[in-house]
Amino acid sequence: MTDSTLPILEGAACPVPMRHDDQIVMGHGSGGRMTQELIERVFAPAFANPILAQSNDFAAFLLPLEAQLHGSLAISTDSHIVSPLFFAGGDIGRLAVCGTVNDVSMSGAQPLYLTAGFIIEEGLPVEMLERIVTSMQAAALEAGVPIVAGDTKVVERGKADGVFINTAGIGWIPAGRQIGGALARPGDAVLISGAIGDHGIAVLSARGELGFDAAVTSDVAPLNALIGAVLQAAPGVRVLRDPTRGGLATTLNEIAQQSNVCIEITEATIPIHTPVQAACDMLGFDPLYVANEGKVIVILPPDQVDAALAAMHRLPYGAEAAAIGVVKPSPARRVLMKTFIGGTRVLDVLAGEMLPRIC
Amino acid sequence: MTDSTLPILEGAACPVPMRHDDQIVMGHGSGGRMTQELIERVFAPAFANPILAQSNDFAAFLLPLEAQLHGSLAISTDSHIVSPLFFAGGDIGRLAVCGTVNDVSMSGAQPLYLTAGFIIEEGLPVEMLERIVTSMQAAALEAGVPIVAGDTKVVERGKADGVFINTAGIGWIPAGRQIGGALARPGDAVLISGAIGDHGIAVLSARGELGFDAAVTSDVAPLNALIGAVLQAAPGVRVLRDPTRGGLATTLNEIAQQSNVCIEITEATIPIHTPVQAACDMLGFDPLYVANEGKVIVILPPDQVDAALAAMHRLPYGAEAAAIGVVKPSPARRVLMKTFIGGTRVLDVLAGEMLPRIC
Repeated sequence: MTDSTLPILEGAACPVPMRHDDQIVMGHGSGGRMTQELIERVFAPAFANPILAQSNDFAAFLLPLEAQLHGSLAISTDSHIVSPLFFAGGDIGRLAVCGTVNDVSMSGAQPLYLTAGFIIEEGLPVEMLERIVTSMQAAALEAGVPIVAGDTKVVERGKADGVFINTAGIGWIPAGRQIGGALARPGDAVLISGAIGDHGIAVLSARGELGFDAAVTSDVAPLNALIGAVLQAAPGVRVLRDPTRGGLATTLNEIAQQSNVCIEITEATIPIHTPVQAACDMLGFDPLYVANEGKVIVILPPDQVDAALAAMHRLPYGAEAAAIGVVKPSPARRVLMKTFIGGTRVLDVLAGEMLPRIC
Repeated sequence: MTDSTLPILEGAACPVPMRHDDQIVMGHGSGGRMTQELIERVFAPAFANPILAQSNDFAAFLLPLEAQLHGSLAISTDSHIVSPLFFAGGDIGRLAVCGTVNDVSMSGAQPLYLTAGFIIEEGLPVEMLERIVTSMQAAALEAGVPIVAGDTKVVERGKADGVFINTAGIGWIPAGRQIGGALARPGDAVLISGAIGDHGIAVLSARGELGFDAAVTSDVAPLNALIGAVLQAAPGVRVLRDPTRGGLATTLNEIAQQSNVCIEITEATIPIHTPVQAACDMLGFDPLYVANEGKVIVILPPDQVDAALAAMHRLPYGAEAAAIGVVKPSPARRVLMKTFIGGTRVLDVLAGEMLPRIC
């Protein structure tokens, strides 16, 4: 039986079945030999570390001695479903590592270990998976947080955007450190570690949905070193949160609600790159609601603002950090913005989906 | 503008947009108000616990005092993609909780906390999500392992089988406990905690792919209590592993390879429920390669077999536990089976996908 859709290998006398080492097929998710081969070929070389090499269904490890004696643990998880898989400044792999490193870091923890769960679509070129996994490993190395456990599943063609990646992470919070969204107090200052909206616009641009090339690069980055530096310089930090989905405005609203305070920001102080603002103006988007993947909101007592900003300015991911607002007692659970023209605008949370799905 | 595909609410004078509280829409994954509402309506009530209620992007917790002073941690992750979402004996929610509770338990750890990441398909009825989440909470309660952090993403219609659920879990391994796939030694005995193949056949039956009703119920169950009892009765246990994807034969092969030993099992001693064997016979499947979700392989020194079996027999999930084989020095990295008719068969790993995808 011949099938003209089957590829013909050079030199082969007749059509042969589709090569399984070039693209993902259902058997790669069977848990059998093909899964083992995929792990050995793609995942193990990239993520190689002694804990992962235990090859069990779990990773076992000791906590750092100091963490054993003092402190608590933080754990977080995030699923990544970005389309396209590659965009200016990053890809789904870098996003999956940085997203969870950052979520764990928002507790004031030092992230220690990551897990990674892959849901791969049948037909994904193995070469593409290798690029993603290589990017994950580069991000994990940059963050200093190894991937110690993983899982691979394969779903039928059309049932995932190439690949979905879930990561979970644990970290160690030093004793006495108290950071959380409910801890903002009137009088505190609100900082942002850099310009907003880059990630969302970069992803839309990569999709060709802007109708023009925005020349914007995603900010996706691991923030654990930046946050460590901020906490050393300004130990009084009360809130750390990364304005991802929903953007700066939605994240500030979450904090205002959890802390039962008003947050007032000043439009003129918010760093926004010119091409991001231009893209938003042209399309009617508000950059305050556009996703970021390498920025952190820092809320802290006013006397530590200078120290925190100086610490951020010394690091590449904090070079454009700025003080953008203050915490007030009322109107509680509201975010207000003093606009360029001197008015005050209420910033609500993002109601539904302003942009096409970007993360 | 009218659109005849929009539903008409009773009593409404004209067509109104689709109700967003009955089914999942893209906005539920925006990170904005609709995401908050979905979390408050569906996830928070089911999973309610003090750590989750912190409402941060991370969960912070103290380890049990004993774990702080002695012992190490285990971490594991698993993505669940079963179709259909509901089947005899379980559903994707119970599977997601039990899968990771069991993977963590395979280290000899006491599982402490879980995270859950949901990738939901647009159009999923909220009622169905509620049933899944309720089932997760029931399984988490049964296992005694709370879900302390989560994440919700929504993908376009067709891009997930209703919902994919990733769970990650951490647990505490008491000091001195050494369990792993590389630790089987010649002379050890091989036990299985009960009958094999129930989960795979139950899922195929729920799909209607058997062409008949197999009357088989999935074995999906949390095994942490069973494993705790085994370890108390038989502290010399060297290997614990659950034969999920790829079934008993594939999992035994993994152990034989990691430990560089031969594992020889005896066909007549392997518990298999009659309807499972009948379904396999009819369809040409081998139950040794069919997935289980509530069984564990225990490898331990022969002098502790009776104690381990007695401990399992006292518990519902171990009532049918049996000794099924022995570990031999050679032929290393092989699994052999003494068959009913007195022959010896080499059991290889599952090469690709024997069955339609079932987990």
